[in-house]
Amino acid sequence: MSVDKPAPAKLKARQPRGFVDRGPADVAATERMLAVIRGSFSRYGFDPVETPFVEYTDALGKFLPDQDRPNEGVFSFQDDDEQWLSLRYDLTAPLARYVAENYDALPKPYRSYRAGYVFRNEKPGPGRFRQFMQFDADIVGAGSVAADAEICMLAADTMEALGIQRGDYVVKVNNRKVLDGFLEHLKIEGPQKLAVLRTIDKADKLDLVELQKLLGEGRRDESGDFTQGAKLGESEIDFISRNFLMGPLLDAVDGAAAYTSERTLKYLDSNRAIWPEGLDELRQIDDLLRGAGYGSDRVRIDHTVVRGLEYYTGPVYEVELTFPVTNEDGQVVRFGSVAGGGRYDGLVGRFRPEPVPATGFSIGVSRLYTALKAVKSPIVDSRNELPLVVVTAMDNKSPEFMPGYQAMVSALRQAKAADDKPLCRADLYLGSSGFNAQMKYADRRGAVCAIIQGSSERDAGTVVIKDLILGAELAAASRDVKDSAEHKAKQAEAQFSVPVEGLVEGVKTVLARHV
Amino acid sequence: MSVDKPAPAKLKARQPRGFVDRGPADVAATERMLAVIRGSFSRYGFDPVETPFVEYTDALGKFLPDQDRPNEGVFSFQDDDEQWLSLRYDLTAPLARYVAENYDALPKPYRSYRAGYVFRNEKPGPGRFRQFMQFDADIVGAGSVAADAEICMLAADTMEALGIQRGDYVVKVNNRKVLDGFLEHLKIEGPQKLAVLRTIDKADKLDLVELQKLLGEGRRDESGDFTQGAKLGESEIDFISRNFLMGPLLDAVDGAAAYTSERTLKYLDSNRAIWPEGLDELRQIDDLLRGAGYGSDRVRIDHTVVRGLEYYTGPVYEVELTFPVTNEDGQVVRFGSVAGGGRYDGLVGRFRPEPVPATGFSIGVSRLYTALKAVKSPIVDSRNELPLVVVTAMDNKSPEFMPGYQAMVSALRQAKAADDKPLCRADLYLGSSGFNAQMKYADRRGAVCAIIQGSSERDAGTVVIKDLILGAELAAASRDVKDSAEHKAKQAEAQFSVPVEGLVEGVKTVLARHV
Repeated sequence: MSVDKPAPAKLKARQPRGFVDRGPADVAATERMLAVIRGSFSRYGFDPVETPFVEYTDALGKFLPDQDRPNEGVFSFQDDDEQWLSLRYDLTAPLARYVAENYDALPKPYRSYRAGYVFRNEKPGPGRFRQFMQFDADIVGAGSVAADAEICMLAADTMEALGIQRGDYVVKVNNRKVLDGFLEHLKIEGPQKLAVLRTIDKADKLDLVELQKLLGEGRRDESGDFTQGAKLGESEIDFISRNFLMGPLLDAVDGAAAYTSERTLKYLDSNRAIWPEGLDELRQIDDLLRGAGYGSDRVRIDHTVVRGLEYYTGPVYEVELTFPVTNEDGQVVRFGSVAGGGRYDGLVGRFRPEPVPATGFSIGVSRLYTALKAVKSPIVDSRNELPLVVVTAMDNKSPEFMPGYQAMVSALRQAKAADDKPLCRADLYLGSSGFNAQMKYADRRGAVCAIIQGSSERDAGTVVIKDLILGAELAAASRDVKDSAEHKAKQAEAQFSVPVEGLVEGVKTVLARHV
Repeated sequence: MSVDKPAPAKLKARQPRGFVDRGPADVAATERMLAVIRGSFSRYGFDPVETPFVEYTDALGKFLPDQDRPNEGVFSFQDDDEQWLSLRYDLTAPLARYVAENYDALPKPYRSYRAGYVFRNEKPGPGRFRQFMQFDADIVGAGSVAADAEICMLAADTMEALGIQRGDYVVKVNNRKVLDGFLEHLKIEGPQKLAVLRTIDKADKLDLVELQKLLGEGRRDESGDFTQGAKLGESEIDFISRNFLMGPLLDAVDGAAAYTSERTLKYLDSNRAIWPEGLDELRQIDDLLRGAGYGSDRVRIDHTVVRGLEYYTGPVYEVELTFPVTNEDGQVVRFGSVAGGGRYDGLVGRFRPEPVPATGFSIGVSRLYTALKAVKSPIVDSRNELPLVVVTAMDNKSPEFMPGYQAMVSALRQAKAADDKPLCRADLYLGSSGFNAQMKYADRRGAVCAIIQGSSERDAGTVVIKDLILGAELAAASRDVKDSAEHKAKQAEAQFSVPVEGLVEGVKTVLARHV
């Protein structure tokens, strides 16, 4: 009995929580989505720009919602010179740094777009990732709300370019000056303000009674969990309910913008408050949208839009998909938000002597992908790909036969279809398994046909082409059918022999049956 | 005299060293490059897969060259649960983790590709960045050198698809079994081995005499800097010079592979060494390449190829661009390497009970971009973009006129060219500056034409279209020319008025002159 040393322990292949791998269908569909969004943003005169993933921590600032988490939600590390660096948590803070650094060289107003991953050092959960992709468009250096209106139109046009039908989405616009102005007037601030904002943010998910509990002492949900309330007094709860939870301040139906709340009209007299300015901006945005032909079925004012990021200073937007989906609990709900943004007039000015107004929005790319699958948009249809042909290597134990198989696969890769585009993707089996495993490999890869050459074909200068789709259909036929002459004729179609130099033409015959 | 509080100090907008922003031409060209590479890899039957930017530090392993740096070249940080995470330093180590984790679900051999940024915590320098993009293709689960041959062909085809002419690139193949085997035989290891490998790596940059100094006591360069040598003995220097610096071990000219060094042939008798196996693999690769029609003008054996990463175990490749460029010192040199890779049979096996062979290569995307600009590849030509039209807003002080301008820019964005593609990109000036500044903005953005409407045009229901390219030509004409009738006719062409509803047709007239 020999005493072997134990094998060294193997590493476990695993991912940090909140990070995910993405497979072929996801990657290919995302590429197509990004191309459509780029096209849409480009037509609006936006130019691409890319900033790196790593910035000085102080340049990014502290603008994430829920700052009560450790590390304030950001992944950070120290450089050799002791300075703190962070992974970007959004694409807006780095843009502000970029514009400030290159201010004189840029045309102003500066329209730009960018796509990329951002990172949040949060507790991961279902549908909540620590790395996710955003696609942003921003206009820096335009203080006019015409810029905000453009962003809303861009958002609406982009949804339709992606295959989301009119009526299945709406861009909702609010103004932080209204929201913040009212709360300031009511002297609601700090954690209490945060609790109120979170409650307003839930306006489309909970009934009024439940919302009012959240504004008051708190609420116990169906699961028994208790959420602390904002502990407002009765008159404050009434005021917020009327203005933000029960109906629009500014009703934009039929192209005529009008203030609809009496109490609001009264407060508009107070010229110390900023909300009248906020309401006036919303009215201007509404005029611009209607002037350009965007109806309230596409973009509309909605006073429940909050947006969590702390750097917003004026109009804020949210793109909501309104079609129904079934959630994890089996309930039918609206799909919900896929994009959002707003005006952030203070962000670039952190670096510059002069104030620099700016506005923009951000698409959540993974969420949008889920949405496009739900509405079966052609953009995320995997059948957009070239068909795959697998060249098997029956004699793969003998290296001297491999160059022959290699020549076949090379010929297929160089072959062109009638439109001068590539005919197909072509794969040579490079493993060491036998023929049956190779055919299984071809099936598993979703190949349309397989190419086979054993010694007898090689001697005859021929090659066998097997139509895997037709073959599978024939194999599934009943016994009676299998005895028929028609079936046998089809079998001859499903697997046939051609001279080696006729390989590409033979493959074309098979592909023509299935494309 | 009032005593004002000093304004709070502004943050400085700056980037951490070694990280860079990328402007519109760079981003757009990179998109096109990536699309071409994806197409090429896809035709070879490779599927896309993406892993996240962050991995457990131990999963990535320590395979970077020059491990004598602090942090071993990797950006790392601790998770909430104290486990160490790192930003990926290449795309190969994360792929190994991915394949090991999803081993049973993947078809094998598993062909995949991926593009993305990687991070090195190194001292940045000219052309040396801490974030850069790679584009990789790998075949996992194929031990046969037919897989290595495929990677070499893929590399060659991809260069041509990118617009690099045959003759302007070469894929050079070597085998670590040969290099490592010889050095092991000579008992050269540790820092001495590293010094020898670095010297061989410089074979195409220095003369033999200088290389031999690096193998011996050391070398002082023109600037006076001294590099410590490997301190080998005379016979070792002679051996390495003959086999690696002076000529090929395996000469692949004219399709006939043959061992050309007598001394090597003698050593081949020793069956304890691994280099005969390495040479035999190179011969097989050569046969496969010639069989598939790839001549030594495209792929060839070259014993000076080293590749720095420590995980390589067999064939290694390097894609070199051979056309001349002028470097920063004014010298004319070969462009050099843009891609490289090799076989890494041990990397997946770190996680798995069974051995898992693998091979692949990686394109340095920024370096390739520089190369494509040098050869003027159409892929990086910025004229591939849609023309830009700028709608000016002469009356931008009056919000009531903005909806009219907004309607014009919307009409242009929705306009289609004859081929049903978008006609143009269209931008509305959203700043607060006056008309002259707006025209400068249009020039600066590279607009082909500008749209103008003041009060008199508005009253008449018209709009002025100004051809900025023709306008610039006319403005540059001499005084004599300017007086001519022809010039005046052209001026009428360069700036003309149309009814508002004829805007799109008018713009088409101008664009047709310049596309």
